[in-house]
Amino acid sequence: MMLDEILAKTKEASFELQALSEGTRNRILEELAGKLLAKIPEIIAANRQDLENARFKQYPEAFLDRLKLDEKRIQTMSAALIQLAKMPPVVGQVLEEKQRPNGLMIQKITVPFGVLAVIFEARPNVLIDVVGIAIKTANAAVLKGGKEAILTNECLISLVGTVLERHIPKAAMTLIKDTDRTVTLALLTKRNFIDLVIPRGGTALIHFVIENAKIPYIETGAGNCHLYVEQTANLEMALKIAVNAKHQRPSVCNAIENILVDQAIAETFLPMLFEKFQQLSIEMRADEAVRKIIPCEPIDESDYDTEYNDDIIALKIVENTMEAVKHINRHSTKHSETIVTEDVSAKNYFFQFVDSACVYHNASTRFSDGGEFGLGAEIGISTQKLHARGPMGLKEMLTYQYRIHGQGQVR
Amino acid sequence: MMLDEILAKTKEASFELQALSEGTRNRILEELAGKLLAKIPEIIAANRQDLENARFKQYPEAFLDRLKLDEKRIQTMSAALIQLAKMPPVVGQVLEEKQRPNGLMIQKITVPFGVLAVIFEARPNVLIDVVGIAIKTANAAVLKGGKEAILTNECLISLVGTVLERHIPKAAMTLIKDTDRTVTLALLTKRNFIDLVIPRGGTALIHFVIENAKIPYIETGAGNCHLYVEQTANLEMALKIAVNAKHQRPSVCNAIENILVDQAIAETFLPMLFEKFQQLSIEMRADEAVRKIIPCEPIDESDYDTEYNDDIIALKIVENTMEAVKHINRHSTKHSETIVTEDVSAKNYFFQFVDSACVYHNASTRFSDGGEFGLGAEIGISTQKLHARGPMGLKEMLTYQYRIHGQGQVR
Repeated sequence: MMLDEILAKTKEASFELQALSEGTRNRILEELAGKLLAKIPEIIAANRQDLENARFKQYPEAFLDRLKLDEKRIQTMSAALIQLAKMPPVVGQVLEEKQRPNGLMIQKITVPFGVLAVIFEARPNVLIDVVGIAIKTANAAVLKGGKEAILTNECLISLVGTVLERHIPKAAMTLIKDTDRTVTLALLTKRNFIDLVIPRGGTALIHFVIENAKIPYIETGAGNCHLYVEQTANLEMALKIAVNAKHQRPSVCNAIENILVDQAIAETFLPMLFEKFQQLSIEMRADEAVRKIIPCEPIDESDYDTEYNDDIIALKIVENTMEAVKHINRHSTKHSETIVTEDVSAKNYFFQFVDSACVYHNASTRFSDGGEFGLGAEIGISTQKLHARGPMGLKEMLTYQYRIHGQGQVR
Repeated sequence: MMLDEILAKTKEASFELQALSEGTRNRILEELAGKLLAKIPEIIAANRQDLENARFKQYPEAFLDRLKLDEKRIQTMSAALIQLAKMPPVVGQVLEEKQRPNGLMIQKITVPFGVLAVIFEARPNVLIDVVGIAIKTANAAVLKGGKEAILTNECLISLVGTVLERHIPKAAMTLIKDTDRTVTLALLTKRNFIDLVIPRGGTALIHFVIENAKIPYIETGAGNCHLYVEQTANLEMALKIAVNAKHQRPSVCNAIENILVDQAIAETFLPMLFEKFQQLSIEMRADEAVRKIIPCEPIDESDYDTEYNDDIIALKIVENTMEAVKHINRHSTKHSETIVTEDVSAKNYFFQFVDSACVYHNASTRFSDGGEFGLGAEIGISTQKLHARGPMGLKEMLTYQYRIHGQGQVR
């Protein structure tokens, strides 16, 4: 089938999905949760094939781990669907309601976008996450997953289809089986069929979307995050946060890549940091000012714009909070930044002037996450300002419509 | 000065604007309101020059009318600024606040985008509207106006600068004096300096933005709007709404371009419509089914996708509400559509399935307007679904930031 035909069917099915009651959509979620549990052996068999192919192609262990589904992971996916089914409705909610002097009643109501397109990497649990959020928000979805997960994804989407078919056309949730980038390029121009694109993936994918999209999109997941240790900081707390934010899971977007240290405490704090980070085998890169105090690898200016996603940290001494904020605004991807300080005015300055989605005081950036924020589900972390910022859950997958009730009013 | 230098100054000034208190920003609005009144003769003199140039180039009368500023219009512009100053604050408002089980306090706070770029046509009052909304929302702004209004715009921006300079660098509100499209193209790629682009203008400008923007934008103002007269409609009401929505001000985006008539009442309603529209010299275009009942100009399929902005209407007979909704979703620009009906289920179906920003029941589409919606100010009418839909006022020029208060929490 040609892409336009596939997308036309999904668009059509999106109206049928919107016509379902909240109760029916919740029932679909529950049925799908049950179906996943019933088909664990089939899913694992398909996934094993993907894993073998990926091992043959010598993908790294971390990649294989993300690709892998086992019984426990499938149970987690299933449980998340049950949780979504139990959440209160988000579609059709009245955000505002007002009667105008001329008698018109204006309601602002949450409505689905229509069709979401989600482009994701070889992590098959994402397929079920997206399908769950889409069903709860009454959005149809076009899914394009990493090619290494194709057999698992095909198995999962066929289970989704089996459940959907009892209620609406299964085209409401469509997996694009062609996995190369020319399809992504085509998707990014389909204004008539797709209402919103969400690229979930690395910086390269996001740049590709920015360069080529002719339809609305939300940038997600680029995380060049910073910790700033201000001169009044509790240094033990700063160290604990540094270790957690850098090292607990270095591959994720809410890990830090940079530590800025106030010059007034550099000679005290940097040696503390050095000792700890060396124990943890974290590579430290820094300019000369830092290297006068502790031994580090030399740093390039380009390091400040790099998301290492690894046990590497860039260190820098700054004059004061103002310089720290300027550095952050110049280099960050506007995801998450944290200040450790005991000084309220430094905290307030940091909160007001750091131009990022999430700003923290005395806490690790690792909390930038839908689950940690209590959103109940997460479709990604936005690094743009339009529509949604930071962790995105159900509400962020909705738009609104004005519904105006009249009795013959004219201007 | 090179464009990048100009924009860098505006970006820098945006932080100073954000640092001002609500009271100071309101005072700036009041001072500007006073300055406009004090400089009426200067403004009118500059505008007269623009008008003369435009007359010499034989622009149509309607264009000259939009370009013209007189004492009354300047007073209106001034009064709008005073009204903005009196409105409650919109920046720094707590949208949500929650304490997580781990003690983290998460606040979701309204914040400005940073720098708005607004591209508008030769209507100089728009410059002051945008400056007013930008100051109230603590956004800096880059303005690019139609070349025919350049002298008026330069006069107005210099008055804005005089007032701003007492508080912050006047670069916070910058008029781009180069008025050709290559500058627009350049603006659309300046991710480092501009946070949001709003094209206010015709379909050509909006398509140019969609094709070329590498930064977030909001599509505005394309209005291919529909009236559907359902079979249970009060036909007198339908006729009154048809006349108002088409004829009261045909050049605006919330005027209708199409009337769909339920087949069950076509033979009754179309002759009523014909008589009235003929009196008003409205050109009627229709397919054969309609022309069997009333004489009309023949219609092309492309007419259904055309925003006439003139006293022309496309007429079509539809089988039922479902067909009307399908036709609307295929051809509308997702701006405003209205159904006239006495049948609640037809109204509900129309409200649920018409995929437009504003849907009306028994009222004219002409109410899709910031003032009519009681927003206090309007920067445009969005026809996209991302971020804002329909009339946009102050709130829509804000984004949010998560501010997380901790006591040393790590994951």
